[in-house]
Amino acid sequence: MPPDSLTPPAGLDHTSAAALHARYHAAPAASPPAWNAVLDTLLRHRSVRAYLPDPLPPGTLETLVAAAQSASSSSNLQTWSVIAVEDRTRKARLAAIAANQKHIVQAPLFLVWLADLARLGAIAERSGVAVEGLDYLELLVVAMVDAALAAQNATVALEGLGLGAVYIGAVRNDIEAVAAELDLPARVMPLFGLCVGYPDPAIPTDVKPRLPQAVVLHRETYRHGAASPDAVAGYDEAMRTFQAVQRMDGDVWSRKVVERVRTPASLTGRHRMREALGKLGFQLR
Amino acid sequence: MPPDSLTPPAGLDHTSAAALHARYHAAPAASPPAWNAVLDTLLRHRSVRAYLPDPLPPGTLETLVAAAQSASSSSNLQTWSVIAVEDRTRKARLAAIAANQKHIVQAPLFLVWLADLARLGAIAERSGVAVEGLDYLELLVVAMVDAALAAQNATVALEGLGLGAVYIGAVRNDIEAVAAELDLPARVMPLFGLCVGYPDPAIPTDVKPRLPQAVVLHRETYRHGAASPDAVAGYDEAMRTFQAVQRMDGDVWSRKVVERVRTPASLTGRHRMREALGKLGFQLR
Repeated sequence: MPPDSLTPPAGLDHTSAAALHARYHAAPAASPPAWNAVLDTLLRHRSVRAYLPDPLPPGTLETLVAAAQSASSSSNLQTWSVIAVEDRTRKARLAAIAANQKHIVQAPLFLVWLADLARLGAIAERSGVAVEGLDYLELLVVAMVDAALAAQNATVALEGLGLGAVYIGAVRNDIEAVAAELDLPARVMPLFGLCVGYPDPAIPTDVKPRLPQAVVLHRETYRHGAASPDAVAGYDEAMRTFQAVQRMDGDVWSRKVVERVRTPASLTGRHRMREALGKLGFQLR
Repeated sequence: MPPDSLTPPAGLDHTSAAALHARYHAAPAASPPAWNAVLDTLLRHRSVRAYLPDPLPPGTLETLVAAAQSASSSSNLQTWSVIAVEDRTRKARLAAIAANQKHIVQAPLFLVWLADLARLGAIAERSGVAVEGLDYLELLVVAMVDAALAAQNATVALEGLGLGAVYIGAVRNDIEAVAAELDLPARVMPLFGLCVGYPDPAIPTDVKPRLPQAVVLHRETYRHGAASPDAVAGYDEAMRTFQAVQRMDGDVWSRKVVERVRTPASLTGRHRMREALGKLGFQLR
Protein backbone atom coordinates (compact mmCIF):
# COMPACT_ATOMS: atom_id res chain seq x y z
CA MET A 1 0.00 0.00 0.00
CA PRO A 2 1.33 3.49 -0.77
CA PRO A 3 1.64 5.88 2.20
CA ASP A 4 -1.42 7.86 1.08
CA SER A 5 -3.62 4.83 1.68
CA LEU A 6 -4.44 6.27 5.10
CA THR A 7 -7.03 8.24 3.16
CA PRO A 8 -10.00 5.92 2.70
CA PRO A 9 -10.62 4.78 -0.86
CA ALA A 10 -13.17 6.67 -2.92
CA GLY A 11 -16.65 5.48 -2.10
CA LEU A 12 -15.87 5.08 1.60
CA ASP A 13 -16.89 8.66 2.21
CA HIS A 14 -19.16 8.22 5.21
CA THR A 15 -17.73 9.24 8.54
CA SER A 16 -18.07 5.76 10.04
CA ALA A 17 -16.46 4.09 7.05
CA ALA A 18 -13.57 6.56 7.13
CA ALA A 19 -13.02 6.08 10.85
CA LEU A 20 -13.12 2.29 10.58
CA HIS A 21 -10.84 2.27 7.56
CA ALA A 22 -8.27 4.39 9.37
CA ARG A 23 -8.35 1.92 12.26
CA TYR A 24 -7.94 -1.24 10.17
CA HIS A 25 -6.55 -0.12 6.79
CA ALA A 26 -9.21 -2.38 5.38
CA ALA A 27 -12.90 -2.40 4.64
CA PRO A 28 -15.01 -2.49 7.84
CA ALA A 29 -15.95 -5.95 9.15
CA ALA A 30 -19.58 -4.77 9.24
CA SER A 31 -21.56 -1.55 8.98
CA PRO A 32 -22.25 0.08 12.36
CA PRO A 33 -25.92 0.08 13.40
CA ALA A 34 -25.62 3.86 13.92
CA TRP A 35 -22.93 6.51 14.12
CA ASN A 36 -22.65 9.26 16.67
CA ALA A 37 -20.26 11.61 18.46
CA VAL A 38 -19.36 8.96 21.03
CA LEU A 39 -18.30 6.37 18.44
CA ASP A 40 -16.53 9.03 16.42
CA THR A 41 -14.51 10.14 19.47
CA LEU A 42 -13.62 6.54 20.38
CA LEU A 43 -12.59 5.48 16.89
CA ARG A 44 -10.47 8.57 16.22
CA HIS A 45 -8.25 8.06 19.28
CA ARG A 46 -4.57 8.60 18.72
CA SER A 47 -1.79 8.96 21.28
CA VAL A 48 -0.36 12.48 21.50
CA ARG A 49 3.29 13.01 22.40
CA ALA A 50 3.67 16.72 21.54
CA TYR A 51 1.71 19.38 23.40
CA LEU A 52 1.12 23.11 23.27
CA PRO A 53 2.06 24.98 26.46
CA ASP A 54 -1.55 26.20 26.87
CA PRO A 55 -3.05 25.46 30.28
CA LEU A 56 -6.26 23.46 30.55
CA PRO A 57 -9.50 25.46 30.99
CA PRO A 58 -10.77 25.73 34.58
CA GLY A 59 -12.88 22.74 35.59
CA THR A 60 -11.19 20.35 33.16
CA LEU A 61 -9.47 18.19 35.77
CA GLU A 62 -12.63 17.90 37.88
CA THR A 63 -14.65 16.95 34.80
CA LEU A 64 -12.14 14.24 33.86
CA VAL A 65 -12.25 12.84 37.39
CA ALA A 66 -16.06 12.84 37.34
CA ALA A 67 -15.93 10.86 34.09
CA ALA A 68 -13.38 8.50 35.66
CA GLN A 69 -15.51 7.95 38.75
CA SER A 70 -18.49 7.18 36.51
CA ALA A 71 -16.81 3.98 35.28
CA SER A 72 -17.83 0.70 36.87
CA SER A 73 -16.03 -0.36 40.04
CA SER A 74 -15.80 -3.95 41.24
CA SER A 75 -18.33 -4.37 44.11
CA ASN A 76 -18.21 -0.55 44.29
CA LEU A 77 -14.96 -0.89 46.28
CA GLN A 78 -13.52 2.11 44.36
CA THR A 79 -9.98 0.85 44.79
CA TRP A 80 -8.21 3.55 42.82
CA SER A 81 -6.92 7.08 43.20
CA VAL A 82 -5.31 9.57 40.86
CA ILE A 83 -2.64 12.20 41.47
CA ALA A 84 -2.65 15.36 39.35
CA VAL A 85 0.91 16.56 38.87
CA GLU A 86 1.36 20.05 37.43
CA ASP A 87 4.59 21.14 39.10
CA ARG A 88 7.26 21.25 36.42
CA THR A 89 10.11 20.05 38.61
CA ARG A 90 8.07 17.09 39.86
CA LYS A 91 7.08 16.21 36.29
CA ALA A 92 10.78 16.34 35.38
CA ARG A 93 11.69 13.96 38.20
CA LEU A 94 8.90 11.58 37.16
CA ALA A 95 10.06 11.79 33.55
CA ALA A 96 13.57 10.83 34.67
CA ILE A 97 12.11 7.67 36.22
CA ALA A 98 9.94 6.97 33.18
CA ALA A 99 12.51 6.61 30.40
CA ASN A 100 13.02 10.38 30.01
CA GLN A 101 9.87 10.89 27.97
CA LYS A 102 9.90 14.62 27.31
CA HIS A 103 6.12 14.86 26.85
CA ILE A 104 5.69 14.19 30.58
CA VAL A 105 7.27 17.59 31.25
CA GLN A 106 5.72 19.27 28.22
CA ALA A 107 2.11 18.32 28.97
CA PRO A 108 0.49 20.82 31.36
CA LEU A 109 -1.07 17.96 33.34
CA PHE A 110 0.40 14.58 34.24
CA LEU A 111 -2.01 12.17 35.90
CA VAL A 112 -0.63 9.20 37.83
CA TRP A 113 -3.26 6.47 38.20
CA LEU A 114 -3.00 4.34 41.31
CA ALA A 115 -4.24 0.88 42.28
CA ASP A 116 -5.18 1.91 45.82
CA LEU A 117 -5.86 -0.65 48.56
CA ALA A 118 -4.71 1.75 51.27
CA ARG A 119 -8.08 3.53 51.48
CA LEU A 120 -9.98 0.30 52.10
CA GLY A 121 -7.29 -0.76 54.58
CA ALA A 122 -7.71 2.53 56.48
CA ILE A 123 -11.51 2.21 56.59
CA ALA A 124 -11.18 -1.34 57.94
CA GLU A 125 -8.60 -0.27 60.51
CA ARG A 126 -10.83 2.55 61.79
CA SER A 127 -13.65 0.08 62.32
CA GLY A 128 -11.28 -2.28 64.10
CA VAL A 129 -11.68 -5.11 61.58
CA ALA A 130 -8.64 -7.11 60.47
CA VAL A 131 -8.83 -7.64 56.71
CA GLU A 132 -6.86 -10.52 55.24
CA GLY A 133 -8.34 -10.25 51.75
CA LEU A 134 -6.20 -7.26 50.82
CA ASP A 135 -3.13 -9.50 50.91
CA TYR A 136 -4.32 -11.56 47.95
CA LEU A 137 -3.39 -11.09 44.28
CA GLU A 138 -7.12 -10.87 43.47
CA LEU A 139 -7.46 -7.53 45.23
CA LEU A 140 -4.58 -6.06 43.26
CA VAL A 141 -6.31 -7.30 40.10
CA VAL A 142 -9.52 -5.60 41.23
CA ALA A 143 -7.65 -2.35 41.90
CA MET A 144 -5.75 -2.42 38.61
CA VAL A 145 -8.94 -3.06 36.63
CA ASP A 146 -10.83 -0.34 38.56
CA ALA A 147 -8.01 2.14 37.86
CA ALA A 148 -7.81 1.23 34.17
CA LEU A 149 -11.56 1.56 33.59
CA ALA A 150 -11.50 4.95 35.34
CA ALA A 151 -8.50 6.20 33.38
CA GLN A 152 -10.01 5.17 30.08
CA ASN A 153 -13.18 7.09 30.84
CA ALA A 154 -11.04 10.16 31.58
CA THR A 155 -9.21 9.64 28.30
CA VAL A 156 -12.43 9.44 26.31
CA ALA A 157 -13.73 12.54 28.10
CA LEU A 158 -10.63 14.60 27.38
CA GLU A 159 -10.53 13.56 23.74
CA GLY A 160 -14.18 14.60 23.47
CA LEU A 161 -13.07 18.02 24.74
CA GLY A 162 -10.44 18.36 22.02
CA LEU A 163 -7.52 17.49 24.28
CA GLY A 164 -4.97 14.74 23.69
CA ALA A 165 -3.25 12.18 25.89
CA VAL A 166 -0.77 9.34 26.00
CA TYR A 167 -0.50 6.57 28.57
CA ILE A 168 2.88 6.19 30.26
CA GLY A 169 3.46 2.57 31.30
CA ALA A 170 7.07 3.49 32.06
CA VAL A 171 6.08 4.69 35.54
CA ARG A 172 6.30 0.96 36.24
CA ASN A 173 10.00 0.96 35.36
CA ASP A 174 10.61 1.83 39.02
CA ILE A 175 7.43 1.85 41.09
CA GLU A 176 9.37 2.30 44.33
CA ALA A 177 10.89 5.56 43.09
CA VAL A 178 7.48 6.81 41.91
CA ALA A 179 5.94 5.85 45.26
CA ALA A 180 8.65 7.83 47.08
CA GLU A 181 8.20 10.88 44.82
CA LEU A 182 4.42 10.88 45.33
CA ASP A 183 4.55 9.97 49.05
CA LEU A 184 2.33 6.93 48.53
CA PRO A 185 1.22 4.95 51.58
CA ALA A 186 1.68 1.17 51.71
CA ARG A 187 -0.60 -0.89 49.43
CA VAL A 188 -0.75 1.75 46.68
CA MET A 189 0.74 0.89 43.29
CA PRO A 190 1.45 3.46 40.56
CA LEU A 191 -0.13 1.70 37.57
CA PHE A 192 0.51 4.14 34.71
CA GLY A 193 0.72 7.82 33.94
CA LEU A 194 -1.33 9.88 31.50
CA CYS A 195 -0.05 13.07 29.84
CA VAL A 196 -2.88 15.52 29.10
CA GLY A 197 -2.83 18.70 27.04
CA TYR A 198 -3.68 20.36 23.76
CA PRO A 199 -2.04 18.50 20.86
CA ASP A 200 0.62 20.51 19.05
CA PRO A 201 -0.85 20.91 15.53
CA ALA A 202 2.66 21.23 14.11
CA ILE A 203 3.29 17.57 14.96
CA PRO A 204 0.17 15.75 13.80
CA THR A 205 -0.38 12.14 14.73
CA ASP A 206 -2.49 9.63 12.92
CA VAL A 207 -4.80 6.83 13.93
CA LYS A 208 -2.74 3.69 14.50
CA PRO A 209 -3.98 0.59 12.71
CA ARG A 210 -4.85 -2.46 14.79
CA LEU A 211 -4.89 -6.19 14.18
CA PRO A 212 -7.84 -7.43 12.08
CA GLN A 213 -10.96 -8.11 14.14
CA ALA A 214 -10.79 -11.80 13.24
CA VAL A 215 -7.55 -12.02 15.26
CA VAL A 216 -8.89 -10.60 18.54
CA LEU A 217 -12.61 -11.43 18.38
CA HIS A 218 -13.56 -15.05 19.03
CA ARG A 219 -17.03 -16.61 18.85
CA GLU A 220 -18.28 -18.95 21.58
CA THR A 221 -14.82 -20.42 22.24
CA TYR A 222 -11.22 -19.38 21.61
CA ARG A 223 -10.28 -19.89 17.97
CA HIS A 224 -6.78 -21.37 18.10
CA GLY A 225 -4.66 -20.11 15.24
CA ALA A 226 -6.69 -16.88 14.88
CA ALA A 227 -3.38 -15.01 14.61
CA SER A 228 -2.51 -16.77 11.37
CA PRO A 229 0.80 -16.00 9.62
CA ASP A 230 -1.20 -14.28 6.85
CA ALA A 231 -3.12 -12.10 9.29
CA VAL A 232 0.07 -11.06 11.07
CA ALA A 233 1.89 -10.38 7.79
CA GLY A 234 -1.01 -8.21 6.63
CA TYR A 235 -0.87 -6.26 9.87
CA ASP A 236 2.91 -5.87 9.64
CA GLU A 237 2.27 -4.26 6.25
CA ALA A 238 -0.43 -1.92 7.61
CA MET A 239 1.94 -0.86 10.39
CA ARG A 240 4.75 -0.32 7.87
CA THR A 241 2.52 2.13 6.00
CA PHE A 242 1.61 3.92 9.22
CA GLN A 243 5.24 4.14 10.32
CA ALA A 244 6.27 5.56 6.94
CA VAL A 245 3.63 8.31 7.14
CA GLN A 246 4.54 9.04 10.77
CA ARG A 247 8.29 8.90 9.99
CA MET A 248 8.67 6.39 12.81
CA ASP A 249 11.35 3.74 12.96
CA GLY A 250 10.44 1.11 10.45
CA ASP A 251 10.96 -2.11 12.39
CA VAL A 252 8.41 -4.77 11.53
CA TRP A 253 5.63 -5.00 14.14
CA SER A 254 5.82 -8.75 14.71
CA ARG A 255 9.61 -8.54 15.19
CA LYS A 256 9.36 -5.48 17.44
CA VAL A 257 6.78 -6.93 19.83
CA VAL A 258 8.76 -10.14 20.23
CA GLU A 259 11.89 -8.14 20.95
CA ARG A 260 9.96 -6.14 23.59
CA VAL A 261 9.44 -9.29 25.69
CA ARG A 262 12.48 -11.37 24.74
CA THR A 263 14.47 -11.18 27.98
CA PRO A 264 14.04 -9.85 31.52
CA ALA A 265 16.29 -6.96 30.48
CA SER A 266 13.87 -5.99 27.69
CA LEU A 267 11.31 -5.20 30.39
CA THR A 268 13.20 -1.98 31.29
CA GLY A 269 13.24 -2.62 35.02
CA ARG A 270 9.80 -4.13 35.25
CA HIS A 271 11.10 -7.69 35.71
CA ARG A 272 11.56 -6.56 39.33
CA MET A 273 7.87 -5.74 39.79
CA ARG A 274 6.95 -8.63 42.04
CA GLU A 275 9.77 -7.82 44.45
CA ALA A 276 8.98 -4.09 44.25
CA LEU A 277 5.30 -4.70 44.98
CA GLY A 278 6.36 -6.63 48.07
CA LYS A 279 8.27 -3.57 49.25
CA LEU A 280 5.17 -1.44 48.63
CA GLY A 281 3.18 -3.67 50.98
CA PHE A 282 1.48 -6.09 48.58
CA GLN A 283 1.80 -9.69 49.69
CA LEU A 284 0.26 -11.10 46.48
CA ARG A 285 -0.88 -14.31 48.13
CA MET B 1 -31.43 13.25 52.49
CA PRO B 2 -34.91 12.06 51.46
CA PRO B 3 -35.03 9.43 48.69
CA ASP B 4 -36.19 11.99 46.13
CA SER B 5 -32.89 13.84 46.46
CA LEU B 6 -31.68 11.92 43.39
CA THR B 7 -33.49 14.66 41.50
CA PRO B 8 -31.15 17.63 41.44
CA PRO B 9 -32.26 20.60 43.51
CA ALA B 10 -34.07 23.44 41.78
CA GLY B 11 -31.60 25.75 40.10
CA LEU B 12 -29.36 22.85 39.04
CA ASP B 13 -31.26 22.59 35.80
CA HIS B 14 -28.42 22.38 33.30
CA THR B 15 -27.66 18.96 31.91
CA SER B 16 -24.11 18.96 33.20
CA ALA B 17 -25.16 20.03 36.69
CA ALA B 18 -27.85 17.34 36.78
CA ALA B 19 -25.44 14.63 35.63
CA LEU B 20 -22.78 15.66 38.14
CA HIS B 21 -25.29 15.94 40.96
CA ALA B 22 -26.58 12.43 40.26
CA ARG B 23 -23.01 11.12 40.43
CA TYR B 24 -22.04 12.81 43.69
CA HIS B 25 -25.34 13.73 45.43
CA ALA B 26 -23.68 17.07 45.98
CA ALA B 27 -22.93 20.28 44.13
CA PRO B 28 -20.29 19.77 41.40
CA ALA B 29 -16.67 20.31 42.43
CA ALA B 30 -16.32 22.71 39.48
CA SER B 31 -18.21 23.69 36.34
CA PRO B 32 -17.18 21.68 33.28
CA PRO B 33 -15.40 23.71 30.58
CA ALA B 34 -17.97 22.38 28.08
CA TRP B 35 -20.66 19.74 27.89
CA ASN B 36 -21.26 17.33 25.05
CA ALA B 37 -22.70 13.94 24.11
CA VAL B 38 -19.50 12.15 25.13
CA LEU B 39 -19.45 13.57 28.67
CA ASP B 40 -23.18 13.02 28.97
CA THR B 41 -22.81 9.34 28.02
CA LEU B 42 -19.90 8.83 30.42
CA LEU B 43 -21.53 10.55 33.40
CA ARG B 44 -24.87 8.79 32.99
CA HIS B 45 -23.39 5.27 33.17
CA ARG B 46 -25.29 2.80 35.30
CA SER B 47 -24.90 -0.97 35.47
CA VAL B 48 -27.81 -2.89 33.96
CA ARG B 49 -28.83 -6.27 35.37
CA ALA B 50 -32.20 -6.75 33.61
CA TYR B 51 -32.42 -7.03 29.84
CA LEU B 52 -35.06 -7.28 27.14
CA PRO B 53 -34.83 -10.41 24.98
CA ASP B 54 -34.35 -8.26 21.85
CA PRO B 55 -31.29 -9.19 19.79
CA LEU B 56 -28.63 -6.58 19.04
CA PRO B 57 -28.82 -4.89 15.62
CA PRO B 58 -26.47 -6.34 12.96
CA GLY B 59 -23.01 -4.79 13.13
CA THR B 60 -23.23 -3.99 16.84
CA LEU B 61 -20.63 -6.51 18.01
CA GLU B 62 -18.17 -5.49 15.30
CA THR B 63 -18.65 -1.82 16.19
CA LEU B 64 -18.00 -2.49 19.88
CA VAL B 65 -14.85 -4.41 19.02
CA ALA B 66 -13.66 -1.57 16.78
CA ALA B 67 -14.17 0.83 19.68
CA ALA B 68 -12.32 -1.58 21.97
CA GLN B 69 -9.40 -1.88 19.57
CA SER B 70 -9.22 1.91 19.37
CA ALA B 71 -8.12 2.12 23.02
CA SER B 72 -4.42 2.51 23.76
CA SER B 73 -2.33 -0.63 23.98
CA SER B 74 0.98 -0.84 25.86
CA SER B 75 3.80 -0.74 23.25
CA ASN B 76 1.05 -1.72 20.79
CA LEU B 77 1.46 -5.33 21.97
CA GLN B 78 -2.35 -5.78 21.83
CA THR B 79 -2.29 -8.42 24.53
CA TRP B 80 -6.02 -8.99 24.81
CA SER B 81 -8.81 -10.91 23.11
CA VAL B 82 -12.55 -11.09 23.60
CA ILE B 83 -14.96 -13.99 23.21
CA ALA B 84 -18.55 -13.25 22.18
CA VAL B 85 -20.85 -15.83 23.76
CA GLU B 86 -24.43 -15.93 22.47
CA ASP B 87 -25.27 -19.62 22.89
CA ARG B 88 -27.78 -19.89 25.70
CA THR B 89 -26.50 -23.16 27.12
CA ARG B 90 -22.92 -21.85 27.22
CA LYS B 91 -24.11 -18.65 28.91
CA ALA B 92 -25.91 -20.82 31.47
CA ARG B 93 -22.75 -22.83 32.18
CA LEU B 94 -20.73 -19.62 32.56
CA ALA B 95 -23.41 -18.18 34.87
CA ALA B 96 -23.14 -21.31 37.02
CA ILE B 97 -19.43 -20.57 37.45
CA ALA B 98 -20.05 -16.86 38.07
CA ALA B 99 -22.26 -16.91 41.17
CA ASN B 100 -25.42 -17.80 39.22
CA GLN B 101 -26.02 -14.27 37.99
CA LYS B 102 -29.18 -14.64 35.92
CA HIS B 103 -28.44 -11.59 33.75
CA ILE B 104 -25.58 -13.53 32.12
CA VAL B 105 -28.18 -15.82 30.56
CA GLN B 106 -30.74 -13.07 30.00
CA ALA B 107 -28.44 -10.70 28.10
CA PRO B 108 -28.34 -11.55 24.38
CA LEU B 109 -24.56 -11.08 24.34
CA PHE B 110 -22.00 -12.05 26.96
CA LEU B 111 -18.47 -10.86 26.27
CA VAL B 112 -15.56 -12.51 28.08
CA TRP B 113 -12.50 -10.26 28.09
CA LEU B 114 -9.15 -12.01 28.13
CA ALA B 115 -5.64 -11.02 29.15
CA ASP B 116 -3.98 -12.81 26.24
CA LEU B 117 -0.24 -13.55 26.17
CA ALA B 118 -0.76 -16.64 24.00
CA ARG B 119 -0.86 -14.66 20.76
CA LEU B 120 2.47 -12.99 21.41
CA GLY B 121 3.88 -16.34 22.48
CA ALA B 122 2.72 -17.95 19.22
CA ILE B 123 4.22 -15.15 17.10
CA ALA B 124 7.54 -15.53 18.94
CA GLU B 125 7.49 -19.30 18.56
CA ARG B 126 6.87 -19.06 14.81
CA SER B 127 9.89 -16.81 14.44
CA GLY B 128 11.97 -19.23 16.52
CA VAL B 129 12.66 -16.74 19.32
CA ALA B 130 12.53 -17.84 22.95
CA VAL B 131 10.72 -15.18 24.98
CA GLU B 132 11.35 -15.09 28.72
CA GLY B 133 9.52 -11.81 29.33
CA LEU B 134 6.08 -13.41 29.14
CA ASP B 135 6.83 -15.29 32.37
CA TYR B 136 6.95 -12.07 34.41
CA LEU B 137 4.13 -10.50 36.40
CA GLU B 138 4.66 -7.27 34.43
CA LEU B 139 3.35 -8.82 31.24
CA LEU B 140 0.18 -9.99 32.95
CA VAL B 141 -0.23 -6.42 34.24
CA VAL B 142 0.20 -5.14 30.67
CA ALA B 143 -2.38 -7.61 29.39
CA MET B 144 -4.90 -6.87 32.14
CA VAL B 145 -4.60 -3.11 31.58
CA ASP B 146 -4.85 -3.53 27.80
CA ALA B 147 -7.99 -5.65 28.22
CA ALA B 148 -9.59 -3.25 30.69
CA LEU B 149 -8.99 -0.17 28.52
CA ALA B 150 -10.47 -2.02 25.54
CA ALA B 151 -13.52 -3.25 27.46
CA GLN B 152 -14.25 0.21 28.81
CA ASN B 153 -14.20 1.66 25.29
CA ALA B 154 -16.69 -1.02 24.25
CA THR B 155 -18.86 -0.15 27.25
CA VAL B 156 -18.88 3.55 26.41
CA ALA B 157 -19.68 2.72 22.79
CA LEU B 158 -22.61 0.48 23.65
CA GLU B 159 -24.05 2.97 26.12
CA GLY B 160 -23.82 5.63 23.42
CA LEU B 161 -25.93 3.29 21.26
CA GLY B 162 -28.65 3.03 23.92
CA LEU B 163 -27.58 -0.40 25.13
CA GLY B 164 -26.72 -1.34 28.70
CA ALA B 165 -24.07 -3.51 30.32
CA VAL B 166 -22.68 -4.83 33.57
CA TYR B 167 -19.19 -6.12 34.29
CA ILE B 168 -18.98 -9.62 35.74
CA GLY B 169 -15.88 -9.99 37.92
CA ALA B 170 -17.23 -13.32 39.13
CA VAL B 171 -15.74 -15.08 36.10
CA ARG B 172 -12.62 -14.93 38.28
CA ASN B 173 -14.31 -17.10 40.92
CA ASP B 174 -12.97 -20.07 38.96
CA ILE B 175 -10.74 -19.07 36.06
CA GLU B 176 -9.76 -22.67 35.36
CA ALA B 177 -13.39 -23.66 34.78
CA VAL B 178 -13.93 -20.64 32.51
CA ALA B 179 -10.74 -21.46 30.60
CA ALA B 180 -11.97 -25.02 30.07
CA GLU B 181 -15.42 -23.86 28.92
CA LEU B 182 -13.93 -21.40 26.41
CA ASP B 183 -11.07 -23.71 25.31
CA LEU B 184 -8.43 -21.11 26.18
CA PRO B 185 -4.81 -21.86 25.33
CA ALA B 186 -2.09 -21.51 27.98
CA ARG B 187 -1.21 -17.95 29.04
CA VAL B 188 -4.74 -16.61 28.57
CA MET B 189 -6.60 -15.34 31.64
CA PRO B 190 -10.34 -14.64 31.71
CA LEU B 191 -10.34 -11.18 33.33
CA PHE B 192 -14.05 -10.32 33.52
CA GLY B 193 -17.29 -10.73 31.63
CA LEU B 194 -19.63 -8.07 30.25
CA CYS B 195 -23.38 -8.60 29.77
CA VAL B 196 -24.73 -6.54 26.85
CA GLY B 197 -28.32 -5.89 25.81
CA TYR B 198 -31.22 -3.48 25.82
CA PRO B 199 -32.11 -2.45 29.38
CA ASP B 200 -35.52 -3.65 30.54
CA PRO B 201 -37.45 -0.39 31.09
CA ALA B 202 -39.65 -2.14 33.66
CA ILE B 203 -36.65 -2.40 36.00
CA PRO B 204 -35.00 1.03 35.87
CA THR B 205 -31.58 1.56 37.41
CA ASP B 206 -30.16 4.78 38.63
CA VAL B 207 -26.75 6.42 38.58
CA LYS B 208 -24.75 5.16 41.55
CA PRO B 209 -23.14 7.87 43.66
CA ARG B 210 -19.37 7.81 44.11
CA LEU B 211 -16.97 8.98 46.79
CA PRO B 212 -16.38 12.76 46.83
CA GLN B 213 -13.67 13.88 44.42
CA ALA B 214 -11.53 15.09 47.32
CA VAL B 215 -11.19 11.45 48.43
CA VAL B 216 -9.85 10.03 45.15
CA LEU B 217 -8.15 13.06 43.54
CA HIS B 218 -4.81 14.08 44.99
CA ARG B 219 -2.66 17.06 44.02
CA GLU B 220 1.10 16.73 43.47
CA THR B 221 1.47 14.04 46.16
CA TYR B 222 -0.82 11.58 47.94
CA ARG B 223 -2.90 13.32 50.59
CA HIS B 224 -2.84 10.96 53.56
CA GLY B 225 -6.15 10.98 55.38
CA ALA B 226 -8.09 12.05 52.27
CA ALA B 227 -10.69 9.40 53.16
CA SER B 228 -11.59 11.20 56.38
CA PRO B 229 -14.26 9.73 58.68
CA ASP B 230 -16.54 12.64 57.71
CA ALA B 231 -16.09 12.04 53.98
CA VAL B 232 -16.79 8.33 54.37
CA ALA B 233 -19.84 8.95 56.59
CA GLY B 234 -21.23 11.40 54.01
CA TYR B 235 -20.77 8.80 51.29
CA ASP B 236 -22.40 6.09 53.42
CA GLU B 237 -25.40 8.41 53.62
CA ALA B 238 -25.46 9.06 49.84
CA MET B 239 -25.34 5.30 49.24
CA ARG B 240 -28.13 4.74 51.78
CA THR B 241 -30.35 7.10 49.77
CA PHE B 242 -29.44 5.33 46.53
CA GLN B 243 -30.10 1.88 48.02
CA ALA B 244 -33.50 3.02 49.35
CA VAL B 245 -34.57 4.28 45.90
CA GLN B 246 -33.23 1.13 44.25
CA ARG B 247 -34.78 -1.13 46.94
CA MET B 248 -31.35 -2.70 47.40
CA ASP B 249 -30.16 -4.24 50.65
CA GLY B 250 -29.41 -1.42 53.00
CA ASP B 251 -26.07 -2.40 54.46
CA VAL B 252 -23.82 0.58 55.07
CA TRP B 253 -21.21 1.01 52.32
CA SER B 254 -18.16 1.27 54.57
CA ARG B 255 -19.23 -1.88 56.43
CA LYS B 256 -20.06 -3.77 53.26
CA VAL B 257 -16.74 -3.11 51.52
CA VAL B 258 -14.76 -4.16 54.58
CA GLU B 259 -16.81 -7.37 54.81
CA ARG B 260 -16.08 -8.02 51.11
CA VAL B 261 -12.35 -8.36 51.82
CA ARG B 262 -12.35 -9.57 55.41
CA THR B 263 -11.18 -13.15 54.94
CA PRO B 264 -9.90 -15.38 52.13
CA ALA B 265 -13.37 -16.98 52.12
CA SER B 266 -15.00 -13.59 51.38
CA LEU B 267 -13.16 -13.60 48.04
CA THR B 268 -15.60 -16.25 46.66
CA GLY B 269 -12.90 -18.54 45.32
CA ARG B 270 -10.56 -15.84 44.11
CA HIS B 271 -8.08 -16.37 46.97
CA ARG B 272 -6.90 -19.26 44.77
CA MET B 273 -6.06 -17.00 41.84
CA ARG B 274 -2.29 -17.18 42.07
CA GLU B 275 -2.34 -20.98 42.07
CA ALA B 276 -4.97 -21.03 39.30
CA LEU B 277 -2.92 -18.64 37.15
CA GLY B 278 0.01 -21.03 37.53
CA LYS B 279 -2.14 -23.82 36.13
CA LEU B 280 -3.11 -21.57 33.22
CA GLY B 281 0.59 -21.17 32.34
CA PHE B 282 1.45 -17.88 34.02
CA GLN B 283 4.68 -18.08 36.01
CA LEU B 284 4.29 -14.59 37.53
CA ARG B 285 8.01 -14.15 38.12
